[in-house]
Amino acid sequence: MAQEYDLVILGGGTGGYVAAIRASQLGLKTAIVEKEKLGGTCLHKGCIPSKALLRSAEVYRQTANAQVYGVEAPEVGLNFTAVQNRKTAIVEQLHNGVKALVKKGKIDVYHGTGRILGPSIFSPMPGTISVEMEGQENEMLLPKNVLIATGSKPRNLIGINVDGQTILSSDHALELETLPGSIIIVGGGVIGIEWASMLADFGVKVTVLEYGDRILPTEDTEVSIEMEKHLVKRGVEIIKNAELMPESVELQDGIEISAKINGQQHSYSAEKLLLAVGRVGNIDGIGLENTDIEYDSHFIKVNDAYQTKEKHIYAIGDVIGGMQLAHIASHEGIAAVEHIAGGEKKPIDYTNVARCIYSYPEAASIGLTEQQAKDNGFDIKVGKFPFKGIGKALVYGDAEGFVKIIADKETNDLLGVHMIGPHVTDLISEAALGKLLDATAWEIGQTIHPHPSLSEVMGEAALAVEGKAIHF
Amino acid sequence: MAQEYDLVILGGGTGGYVAAIRASQLGLKTAIVEKEKLGGTCLHKGCIPSKALLRSAEVYRQTANAQVYGVEAPEVGLNFTAVQNRKTAIVEQLHNGVKALVKKGKIDVYHGTGRILGPSIFSPMPGTISVEMEGQENEMLLPKNVLIATGSKPRNLIGINVDGQTILSSDHALELETLPGSIIIVGGGVIGIEWASMLADFGVKVTVLEYGDRILPTEDTEVSIEMEKHLVKRGVEIIKNAELMPESVELQDGIEISAKINGQQHSYSAEKLLLAVGRVGNIDGIGLENTDIEYDSHFIKVNDAYQTKEKHIYAIGDVIGGMQLAHIASHEGIAAVEHIAGGEKKPIDYTNVARCIYSYPEAASIGLTEQQAKDNGFDIKVGKFPFKGIGKALVYGDAEGFVKIIADKETNDLLGVHMIGPHVTDLISEAALGKLLDATAWEIGQTIHPHPSLSEVMGEAALAVEGKAIHF
Repeated sequence: MAQEYDLVILGGGTGGYVAAIRASQLGLKTAIVEKEKLGGTCLHKGCIPSKALLRSAEVYRQTANAQVYGVEAPEVGLNFTAVQNRKTAIVEQLHNGVKALVKKGKIDVYHGTGRILGPSIFSPMPGTISVEMEGQENEMLLPKNVLIATGSKPRNLIGINVDGQTILSSDHALELETLPGSIIIVGGGVIGIEWASMLADFGVKVTVLEYGDRILPTEDTEVSIEMEKHLVKRGVEIIKNAELMPESVELQDGIEISAKINGQQHSYSAEKLLLAVGRVGNIDGIGLENTDIEYDSHFIKVNDAYQTKEKHIYAIGDVIGGMQLAHIASHEGIAAVEHIAGGEKKPIDYTNVARCIYSYPEAASIGLTEQQAKDNGFDIKVGKFPFKGIGKALVYGDAEGFVKIIADKETNDLLGVHMIGPHVTDLISEAALGKLLDATAWEIGQTIHPHPSLSEVMGEAALAVEGKAIHF
Repeated sequence: MAQEYDLVILGGGTGGYVAAIRASQLGLKTAIVEKEKLGGTCLHKGCIPSKALLRSAEVYRQTANAQVYGVEAPEVGLNFTAVQNRKTAIVEQLHNGVKALVKKGKIDVYHGTGRILGPSIFSPMPGTISVEMEGQENEMLLPKNVLIATGSKPRNLIGINVDGQTILSSDHALELETLPGSIIIVGGGVIGIEWASMLADFGVKVTVLEYGDRILPTEDTEVSIEMEKHLVKRGVEIIKNAELMPESVELQDGIEISAKINGQQHSYSAEKLLLAVGRVGNIDGIGLENTDIEYDSHFIKVNDAYQTKEKHIYAIGDVIGGMQLAHIASHEGIAAVEHIAGGEKKPIDYTNVARCIYSYPEAASIGLTEQQAKDNGFDIKVGKFPFKGIGKALVYGDAEGFVKIIADKETNDLLGVHMIGPHVTDLISEAALGKLLDATAWEIGQTIHPHPSLSEVMGEAALAVEGKAIHF
């Protein structure tokens, strides 16, 4: 007997469970189908565990540096097992939290693989969900609407055999029981750079191979340059324009890999290799072929209400591509559910979404880079202010980096904000509100930022747009 | 021969030097008269040195707690001389920065005590400035406009003899060469609580005597209660409703002081006593009596353009009373100078000014407390969200505290935001921009806060105003 629902969500990750909670708040009878754990990649294989490890790396670095503050800690050591146990405990605490929230919302959870069926005796439309559970008969769910929130998985490169032992994806790296002495990280994007920073802090010799001509290619060029400078200072080797030659991968008590750099072949060796070259949508095995849903080799296509070609089947989060961020997934999930519940469509303006990098130093940005603004035909003005001009940054003991604001020359509207330095992954939220409210740089500059605070850097950078910074 | 200026500023503190820089940007020929050092109380006796000590206290606490993160530091000690040296070095670096900025702005600095003279052969109006410099003849300055930015000094209590040895003001406390074993702090306001938190972290036994029925009396009651809970947990003794009996102060290898608590007399003793009962304006000896300027026993009166009764003499910052914050002084200074330069008057909306407390935990707020909102006749709704529901707070290892948002029930406008917890002195800047732009709680809730970040607490608290928080 098929269970009827207003909404069945495939995938209980950040996108899926947040959508489910909002659906429950709106009175929809809702179920989640999840084959692994509620919380998904973000909670179990991504944001949270990686940030927990990064936090331990930060404390290790700061503890080793404590004498700068007048604090003596002559013997500092790392207990990596304890680091991993802390990470696991935090994930478990949050996992229990998510389970409790879902239970409180009276959301049914089916632990299995959800598959969309075509038209059948249950339904004239595709969308019946068959839940395949190990060792049990399939359960049939009959939803009025479906939300696909199946997320993504690490992308592989042809010729590189991710074995989980020597060649790792980020999933494997999170579960390392001991630290390697050295590692090659293939990919200098956000994930690669977070790992490079963390492992360098833990004392691992890190080599980053990046295909492009700079790390963090989606960030403003000045941020890329500043980040590279800091990583190199901490011993990270960064090789750009590296065209991998995967056939030359060899295993011999570690790994050797070759790359062409400007036509010249070079070899790099290390104990481990981490492949961090992006993520692809989980579109296989969920029955898309039984529907008219459009998709390409990696991602599902949706309209600006997050509907697929099947109007009652929605898709959000990593599986539709784009920036693949947890906070995008959850906000897309909310937008989709509110549309299902009869609300207006509320497409996300992706130029209002902050992107964060939790390395040391941290980086965060929103909107257009300087180059993107120019490429889009904007006539721009730029304000930039360094953390070393901010008293609180000196007090804090971390005054590297800067904030750069791109504004429209005529309207003074914020086009982009780019930050690198202490706590910028929190400071960016002011810019996010500013972007949402169509603030001008002038308004940011008029805002009274408390003294002494790191946030003063926003005010000064905004004043700098007009050449009116005070402490410069 | 009197030097002529467009503007002479009495006092080179944060209010004065920032005003001077803006005046210079606007093309005004400007001088500062400062009897001590450029940077004033904030840089030399307030914000900056106290935050430097608080930062060392934080690092000491975190280092002692490092094993929670998997970092082993079995022997942790405090080198208080190094703590003080670090503080001094930071102050000196910033002092050099301010001197360089003032020089770059071609602002003349007179090192002496400025005194406003009455009408004379130099000028038919009061406002000529006599600069009294040690061992030199007085210099005469003839300004078109004067800005009084003489700041404030610690308030004394009758019967308590601040000797700088056993009984200290915050000025003295900043210069301690060794830590006392125990201290009584009279006053549970911002300054008292910052010192209580810092000294408790440094291992000093702290007793706070507060006259009112709660600490931090200008903050929202829930923040006061939460702060008290944390301080008490860390061993701080907090005595409320303490009516001091100053005549009973005795010195005997320390100090004993008595207070009536609900009619009962109690005695408290410690090695040192810190008096932290507010600050009064520096209005003496600057020649106010030679002018028509209105002032009371502590502060100068100004209109909403920061003009005194003498229209060409302005006053800003601590010397006009109010919240006595550095960022208020600097913004008032800018407003006054822009008015002098012919701009419109731009009175500061003090409900848009953030107040920060740099204790552990930190607290920050803006606008009306719940009680103030009710007292002002607002029909309100309140959203509150705890840091323990924020993944990044768990990752960070500090998930105490909350954010509380007060909104107008009808318009949904932000009336007040109250925060206590990790890094709230930076997180408050989003609320400051929101207040400036007349944002609604709904708009804060629609803002996409990056995940995982501490700033998500703002989004959740804003959604909670409508009962729509996700992680609750």
